[in-house]
Amino acid sequence: MAILITGIGELTTNDPELGRPRDAAVVLDGERIAWVGPAVRAPAADERFDAEGRAALPGWVDSHTHLVFAGDRTAEFADRMAGKPYQAGGIATTVAATRAAGDAELAANLRRHVDEAARQGTTCLETKTGYGLSVPDEVRSARIAATVADEVTFLGAHLVPPGADPESYVDLVRGRMLDEVAQFVRWVDVFCERGAFDEAQCERVLRAGIARGLGARVHGNQLGHGPGVQLAVRVGAASVDHCSYLDEADLAALSGSDTVATLLPACDLSTRQPLAPARRLLDAGVVIALATNANPGSSYTTSMNFCVATAVLQMGLSVEEAVWAATAGGARALRRDDVGVIRVGARADLQVLDAPSVTHLAYRPGVPLTWRVWQRGRAVLSRFVVEEGAFATDHP
Amino acid sequence: MAILITGIGELTTNDPELGRPRDAAVVLDGERIAWVGPAVRAPAADERFDAEGRAALPGWVDSHTHLVFAGDRTAEFADRMAGKPYQAGGIATTVAATRAAGDAELAANLRRHVDEAARQGTTCLETKTGYGLSVPDEVRSARIAATVADEVTFLGAHLVPPGADPESYVDLVRGRMLDEVAQFVRWVDVFCERGAFDEAQCERVLRAGIARGLGARVHGNQLGHGPGVQLAVRVGAASVDHCSYLDEADLAALSGSDTVATLLPACDLSTRQPLAPARRLLDAGVVIALATNANPGSSYTTSMNFCVATAVLQMGLSVEEAVWAATAGGARALRRDDVGVIRVGARADLQVLDAPSVTHLAYRPGVPLTWRVWQRGRAVLSRFVVEEGAFATDHP
Ligand SMILES: [Zn+2]
Ligand SMILES: [Zn+2]
Repeated sequence: MAILITGIGELTTNDPELGRPRDAAVVLDGERIAWVGPAVRAPAADERFDAEGRAALPGWVDSHTHLVFAGDRTAEFADRMAGKPYQAGGIATTVAATRAAGDAELAANLRRHVDEAARQGTTCLETKTGYGLSVPDEVRSARIAATVADEVTFLGAHLVPPGADPESYVDLVRGRMLDEVAQFVRWVDVFCERGAFDEAQCERVLRAGIARGLGARVHGNQLGHGPGVQLAVRVGAASVDHCSYLDEADLAALSGSDTVATLLPACDLSTRQPLAPARRLLDAGVVIALATNANPGSSYTTSMNFCVATAVLQMGLSVEEAVWAATAGGARALRRDDVGVIRVGARADLQVLDAPSVTHLAYRPGVPLTWRVWQRGRAVLSRFVVEEGAFATDHP
Repeated sequence: MAILITGIGELTTNDPELGRPRDAAVVLDGERIAWVGPAVRAPAADERFDAEGRAALPGWVDSHTHLVFAGDRTAEFADRMAGKPYQAGGIATTVAATRAAGDAELAANLRRHVDEAARQGTTCLETKTGYGLSVPDEVRSARIAATVADEVTFLGAHLVPPGADPESYVDLVRGRMLDEVAQFVRWVDVFCERGAFDEAQCERVLRAGIARGLGARVHGNQLGHGPGVQLAVRVGAASVDHCSYLDEADLAALSGSDTVATLLPACDLSTRQPLAPARRLLDAGVVIALATNANPGSSYTTSMNFCVATAVLQMGLSVEEAVWAATAGGARALRRDDVGVIRVGARADLQVLDAPSVTHLAYRPGVPLTWRVWQRGRAVLSRFVVEEGAFATDHP
């Protein structure tokens, strides 16, 4: 079934030839975009939707989340914000709750968060294992993730499980755990940080994953300067994520590479860390992505709108740069060319804002601007979306 | 008609005796709260609403907005974020568009923004004149504002209109303009800042308003240190707003006064200014409020949720402190005791979050958490709110 979305006041395509046309229309046919052009020349379709001058853009590509989890860490967050000292072992709390949860609970929790993200415009989402940390629990997490998320990443090297010997655990991760998880995942990731895994351990895990045909990703340079960025570039990782602490050599390595720097501003703010140096990265010619890092500990938001607003208001990005990073940038970080772009043949992932311009994402921070979302050509309906006039405003 | 809201998992009352009970219920009767207590002891009512464990709190009190305006400044914002130099005269742009607009357009624009705010939980809202800057245009703005907003403030002293002599304009503001506007407003406000009005001019305007029975408010210390805070305390203003640049004498003056310091974090971020020193103010014993400063130039958001999240994540407030400042603090800044609080006799303004705790306002930044809102006892229905099951999520 073909759907014509017309009356688009401003269409962000991320396609160099199409640019950002005004008064545009898009035709979705099944799971693909079938036509893009001026509204006045739009072809007929089975169904017609008038955006009435609103802005449309590709759905968000959230290339970094940790949503296979159970348990609650609200109190830990509240304590942190009240100035109480940060309790290490937060991840271990989630590991314990995740291991204790049944499959159905884990799947429902993941689905609930992915749906919530979709209602806010996220149409392509990566998620990770990493709260299992045993062979059966990591395999289960990967299997459940693969039923819901667009992209699944194996993060057995998230934390050395309490009581385990680090070197033996690394051998398990790159050995039997990887063997059993590999069928469910496309990516292998490591948490390369003081207190997690060191450079040599991370490289062994990544090389093992690459040898199994997986793409590489790295958590690096989050809490201080470290070897994560250089490691990511050296192994040809698709992305190195966090990047809060960078030196000139890191910038140089990234700018000459195919590795995307994925920035996670909601995480930086939620842990009261400095925001990553987005402007310096762009000025050095590095490709950046914006993602939520949605997880119950350090960044419990699914809002890409919030990440875009923060990047513009506080990280020195223009609106165009931030929107690109949250769509096409995320696609690059996942080495995909079928999402994060509006052009014929791309996946039919599109969002319409209740605003005439993408500028409003930063101009109107916090206002829920998501108006309509299509994912693989299907309308995402939600409690944020009601037909005009279905409910009158009852307020005096 | 009485409405019972029960199953409240966490009820923030802002009442020292009631505290923050769990498993609570509230009865709204007409425009007032008629009962607050444990859910298990809740009386019967005409209508019953089950919050199913969600958190409830007073509606937001947004004590600082400028929503009587016309025209568009999206491009100016985008240029500022792209690093182009800030163009002075932005206010003048809005003044020209506001003067050119018809009454119906101004009223519809105001109503649209107030409705948008209500859908996000704002149940008591102050707004200002200040884009008219002539006797007929200020009177018209005040008259329209009075039909929609809870509180209306006369801000003739917003800017010296282009071409006018400053001293003559001040005399007009505190003379004939005040005379004609007074019937529509409760407050008089001044923009005490280099480039706007100096201390002596501001004091003349404020004293004239006070002599007419109006309460005083001050815009002060926004762009640099200035006399605004001391002036506000000296004249007994209910609030001094912005407060980005404060010295020890300002803190001392405020802490010994009945003047609230109203902080406008969305404005600070939208102008890439430093965030106001909320923690220092609280630690000095100053009462603070949080407000949006919603206006098309420096802060075009109606989202109190965003202000609360920013205050917690970036201004050193605990969740409880920020939520208090955005409800009871706003009420104090407007010298009201009937809003910003859940207790018997207070106005029936209440919001329910789609979360088990107010902590989630900061824990989940950007996620639209407003679930249900009652204003003066009436449900605010909106496109963000659909009955359960009315729309199934169609996403795979
Ligand atoms: Zn992560
Ligand atoms: Zn103001």
